[in-house]
Amino acid sequence: MNRMPWHPALGCALPIVQAPMAGVQDYRLAAAVCQAGGLGSLPAATHTAESLRQELLRLHHALGADGNTPTQQPYNLNFFAHTSPTPDAIRNARWHALLQPYYAQWGLVQDTGPASAGRHPFDAAMADVVQAFRPAVVSFHFGLPAPDLLERVRRSGARIWSSATTVAEARWLADHGADAIIAQGLEAGGHRGMFLSTDLHTQLGTMALLPQVLDAVPIPVIAAGGIGDARAVQAVLSMGACAAQVGTAYLLCPEATTSPLHRTALQQGDTPTALTNLFTGRPARGLVNRLMRELGPLREDIPPFPLCTTALAPLRQAAEPQGCSDFTPLWAGQNTHACQTMAAGLLTRQLGEATKTDGAL
Amino acid sequence: MNRMPWHPALGCALPIVQAPMAGVQDYRLAAAVCQAGGLGSLPAATHTAESLRQELLRLHHALGADGNTPTQQPYNLNFFAHTSPTPDAIRNARWHALLQPYYAQWGLVQDTGPASAGRHPFDAAMADVVQAFRPAVVSFHFGLPAPDLLERVRRSGARIWSSATTVAEARWLADHGADAIIAQGLEAGGHRGMFLSTDLHTQLGTMALLPQVLDAVPIPVIAAGGIGDARAVQAVLSMGACAAQVGTAYLLCPEATTSPLHRTALQQGDTPTALTNLFTGRPARGLVNRLMRELGPLREDIPPFPLCTTALAPLRQAAEPQGCSDFTPLWAGQNTHACQTMAAGLLTRQLGEATKTDGAL
Repeated sequence: MNRMPWHPALGCALPIVQAPMAGVQDYRLAAAVCQAGGLGSLPAATHTAESLRQELLRLHHALGADGNTPTQQPYNLNFFAHTSPTPDAIRNARWHALLQPYYAQWGLVQDTGPASAGRHPFDAAMADVVQAFRPAVVSFHFGLPAPDLLERVRRSGARIWSSATTVAEARWLADHGADAIIAQGLEAGGHRGMFLSTDLHTQLGTMALLPQVLDAVPIPVIAAGGIGDARAVQAVLSMGACAAQVGTAYLLCPEATTSPLHRTALQQGDTPTALTNLFTGRPARGLVNRLMRELGPLREDIPPFPLCTTALAPLRQAAEPQGCSDFTPLWAGQNTHACQTMAAGLLTRQLGEATKTDGAL
Repeated sequence: MNRMPWHPALGCALPIVQAPMAGVQDYRLAAAVCQAGGLGSLPAATHTAESLRQELLRLHHALGADGNTPTQQPYNLNFFAHTSPTPDAIRNARWHALLQPYYAQWGLVQDTGPASAGRHPFDAAMADVVQAFRPAVVSFHFGLPAPDLLERVRRSGARIWSSATTVAEARWLADHGADAIIAQGLEAGGHRGMFLSTDLHTQLGTMALLPQVLDAVPIPVIAAGGIGDARAVQAVLSMGACAAQVGTAYLLCPEATTSPLHRTALQQGDTPTALTNLFTGRPARGLVNRLMRELGPLREDIPPFPLCTTALAPLRQAAEPQGCSDFTPLWAGQNTHACQTMAAGLLTRQLGEATKTDGAL
């Protein structure tokens, strides 16, 4: 089994991957992590191909490259690999009915037209971007794109990573061209990467998932979920992971674009998280808020991913400026205790403490 | 903070605690673990004081003591510290109605009389047993008993441990006389030890819970939940736990009393687990079976712990001899992958591999 450290081979000093977090970060967090020796990640799912190009230019510039010359600095570009949804008029109507009391409360009138996507699966235009910018790592959530698209990523020279939430998914990814697996434990914030089953009972905590995935696949495994400090990083490395992916701990960094509302909620400290599909249609972990409490965090009668977001947008637009996060996804993992109000570079170095290598394979 | 290893002080060679598992073990599993250098545990909650005395005599005998002379071998005697339930006629009737189709299917007639408890909280008679047998450790689930009872345990010379599923519970236990905390991650099988909240969203995976508990209390912390092999033991020790508590991995050992049905279900390998309160009234993790699928694993309209068990007993009695586990609690943690069909002593030594100390403090 190839369990050699990936980070010296990639050119990273530290076995720390900053988790891609759409909505709460841009190139600045990724750049700060890269500059500190970790692998910064840029989430692409909410970008169009054109806006992603602009963002990558900013990232490359921050990493010392000129124009769109490939930077020597490794980073991870993350895409969603879901299938575009088929709108469902009945579920959409049901969703509008569920939200109507909130619209009424905020004096808003619903636009009951079709929902728009907002989150885009990896496609040919994005493959063009990958080929132009040549990131060291391209990671996927929700499986992998179609073989021809994946082949274009491979030919760009990128290593291909994807998230597994079960042993079956890890095996599937290893069999379908992934170079490494991100074992996403149930503690993780944001969207579950699950793609072979929709049964949440299949989802395991990091302590149970990681050894099973390590035993199941012959490729490197990055551990994710609940990892928030150097102790936990050391623990997953000692279990056999080649790196730790850390998300929640970065949410309070000044380089993150986490909203003030979201920051305040994270700092309250004792709000639990839950898996919810209300905000997008797919289960994701966030701090429990009013929408989750009142509608129940998981529902089967809502529009498919990512079409839930459209009808929530006007509520967010009305409520957030009033300091109200009732309709806002407050993505967070279970270890909000690990959030640090410190520079992302310093946090990266602290996470990587006691794991430094001399760069030799 | 007192983070010195507890196991040399107790007289154990290995920092491995065998989790007490009512219903699937007796003194034999505990004795085998003790003899291998771990801390074996005997679950007392389903015993009367008199049957517990008999069981402890067998344990002491297996550990080389004569009669009821205190053995020199440390072991852990585990009690539940719940409040005895107040029967609720409405919930009981609702429960009978929910189960009626299954009774009809099996040609059984329900006894709709009051439910009996079956699981007993720690009381004065049990304190007498503790004082007579003087176990090295007395552990509690669901909090701690009343102060006068706890004082009797303390005066017996036992160290007092209890399970925490949240930081708040860990702090409460440290403030109320616990000598060590078992941090029970969400991966763990059997009953959640939760006692300050009934909100399952407060429950954290081991990777998130353990560092938070370690930071919150100044007493030793034993990690539990998903820990099934030497890698995971090493990982939690490296995070700062003084020991690892392991349950599920022991379920297939010949010394366990795990039923053939339960063993078969564990060996099928791909059955997920879920938290369910159907079998007792309190949330516990077990393999998903028909009752959980059809009624939903978690319900609010069922009798309080542990009164659910009474009405299920006739169904189990009818179904189990037919090889049917539809009504049987198949307790298991998320890491069923770690179950080993091997002698418990050998498993204990394997779990403790690479963690051996020379016994010095």
